[in-house]
Amino acid sequence: MDVEFELKKRADFFNSQLEKFMNNGQPETLYDAARHLPFAGGKRLRPVMAMIACEAVKGDIINVIPLSIALELIHNFTLVHDDIMDKSKLRRGKPSVHIRYGEPTAIIAGDLLYTKAFESMHKIPKDDKTFKNVEFGLIDCIREICEGQQLDMEFEKRNNVTEDQYMEMIRKKTSVFFQYAAEAGAILGGADKEQVNALNEYGLSLGLGFQIWDDYLDISSSEETLGKDIGNDIRNGKKTLIAVHCLNNAKGKDKEDLEKIFGNLNATEEEIKKVHNIFEKTGSIKYAKDTAINYVDDAKKYISILPDTKSKKLLINLADYAIERKK
Amino acid sequence: MDVEFELKKRADFFNSQLEKFMNNGQPETLYDAARHLPFAGGKRLRPVMAMIACEAVKGDIINVIPLSIALELIHNFTLVHDDIMDKSKLRRGKPSVHIRYGEPTAIIAGDLLYTKAFESMHKIPKDDKTFKNVEFGLIDCIREICEGQQLDMEFEKRNNVTEDQYMEMIRKKTSVFFQYAAEAGAILGGADKEQVNALNEYGLSLGLGFQIWDDYLDISSSEETLGKDIGNDIRNGKKTLIAVHCLNNAKGKDKEDLEKIFGNLNATEEEIKKVHNIFEKTGSIKYAKDTAINYVDDAKKYISILPDTKSKKLLINLADYAIERKK
Repeated sequence: MDVEFELKKRADFFNSQLEKFMNNGQPETLYDAARHLPFAGGKRLRPVMAMIACEAVKGDIINVIPLSIALELIHNFTLVHDDIMDKSKLRRGKPSVHIRYGEPTAIIAGDLLYTKAFESMHKIPKDDKTFKNVEFGLIDCIREICEGQQLDMEFEKRNNVTEDQYMEMIRKKTSVFFQYAAEAGAILGGADKEQVNALNEYGLSLGLGFQIWDDYLDISSSEETLGKDIGNDIRNGKKTLIAVHCLNNAKGKDKEDLEKIFGNLNATEEEIKKVHNIFEKTGSIKYAKDTAINYVDDAKKYISILPDTKSKKLLINLADYAIERKK
Repeated sequence: MDVEFELKKRADFFNSQLEKFMNNGQPETLYDAARHLPFAGGKRLRPVMAMIACEAVKGDIINVIPLSIALELIHNFTLVHDDIMDKSKLRRGKPSVHIRYGEPTAIIAGDLLYTKAFESMHKIPKDDKTFKNVEFGLIDCIREICEGQQLDMEFEKRNNVTEDQYMEMIRKKTSVFFQYAAEAGAILGGADKEQVNALNEYGLSLGLGFQIWDDYLDISSSEETLGKDIGNDIRNGKKTLIAVHCLNNAKGKDKEDLEKIFGNLNATEEEIKKVHNIFEKTGSIKYAKDTAINYVDDAKKYISILPDTKSKKLLINLADYAIERKK
């Protein structure tokens, strides 16, 4: 099976549906701003995951398209607002929405993407009870994403973050959304309870692995690959699993240096390198990498109960992708 | 009937329900930020309107509380984001959310209020079909509010706004929400089609009158009463009905002066007074006042088909309030 081809086939079909759904609206500037990020690329991981989860329980993916559109729009809504909060100028290699359209229009564009997501949910071709059940899951998810984003910001100002607190933060900020994508895809595919639970656990574990791998990539890859300054996270005191592990495990002079440099906006290139060395010395980078791999292994185990189909294999490949990707 | 007492009784009951609904959540800072504006006062016009619409068709207001909470949270979510866009420092006499909690937390607090509104909708004690129908109305409404807010901003940079365009802008930005509050309140109260339509038209006309009266208040009242600088709207080129009417009707030297001063951020106090005089001379202030009164008269006529009850009288009083209030 050509995995990339199979994933691309689904992403392309999804894109054509998303384009149809988002192809009109007035005033034009607002809708252009709302379309800017969703059509600037993106991996479509969440919608494709929902589609494959649906297939894996032998459902028809037509049932899951409105949900998939909602997932991608919600994901993009959070990115538009996050970029304003973080003052990020670039996203997917293009100017972020607030840079291109100004902050006021970017705020509304985010709100509109949120709204269009719910509009899409209302097109789910299922009975009202199933719709209500699946929609409530999405609402709950967005609440947790808001909470997780706030925690992430608050952690930057704290040095005493435990690993459990870090895990809870990324669970909310990133992983619940993967969890929901897989679970809701299964429900709309007509899965039984055992299958729904399996895909729920799969999505959560994959989401945790995905976020930790993100932390690992940020620190281990060069500036070119990721297109962003790896020193920034250290200067901002960003609590990645690597940083949390290191802050809790560094000793003596290393601990002193780390506490002095980490979170210091004026840290020099040399100091950034020093922190990187301490990360290596405490084994924190390897620890994060291994943890990500373990979560992805768990994700794959959870779906062992599913019937052996091409879609199940794709779910496994999707999990592997989370810890193989270079960006 | 003591109108104020009757309205306050309902607002107080609503407040106790809102407090219960919003009384917990972590992280605390985020929930404090989300609670800041809803509990800083506010007239509760939209939730109270939904409650009375429900009563007026002989429904039990318990059915309408989750909707009322959603209406107030959505209203507050738009205010939190609007204040960021407009860089407004004060709201309801208190520092706005982004001033008190910083812009990033204020953006998420708005998103969270939006989310909590939908959470509340899911508590509507009706069958799934009615829920879905009423919820879709809310989604459609929020889409129009986003569009209206964008139009309002774009109009500031344009001088060629027609009265029809202005009316469409305020319909979306403000009036659809009143329209929805009255209509959804009626539906949840078990109204028949004729009653639902009557309350829909009532809400829309009241909403139009309400917004135009706002424009009128801004220009006719002193700085003390409204707590904001009346010159700012003129300096920012804000397209109120007064401004639109005047720009389309002023002649000769007045027209020249108006076009020079209106929208000029550096306009002097004297120039502001000159514009005010031109507004008076073209009859634009009186025109706006009369238009607001006409819409409110229409609103009252639409509900003439309702049975004569105390609640119907309250709806009439609520309409009158829209054009009697001083702030």
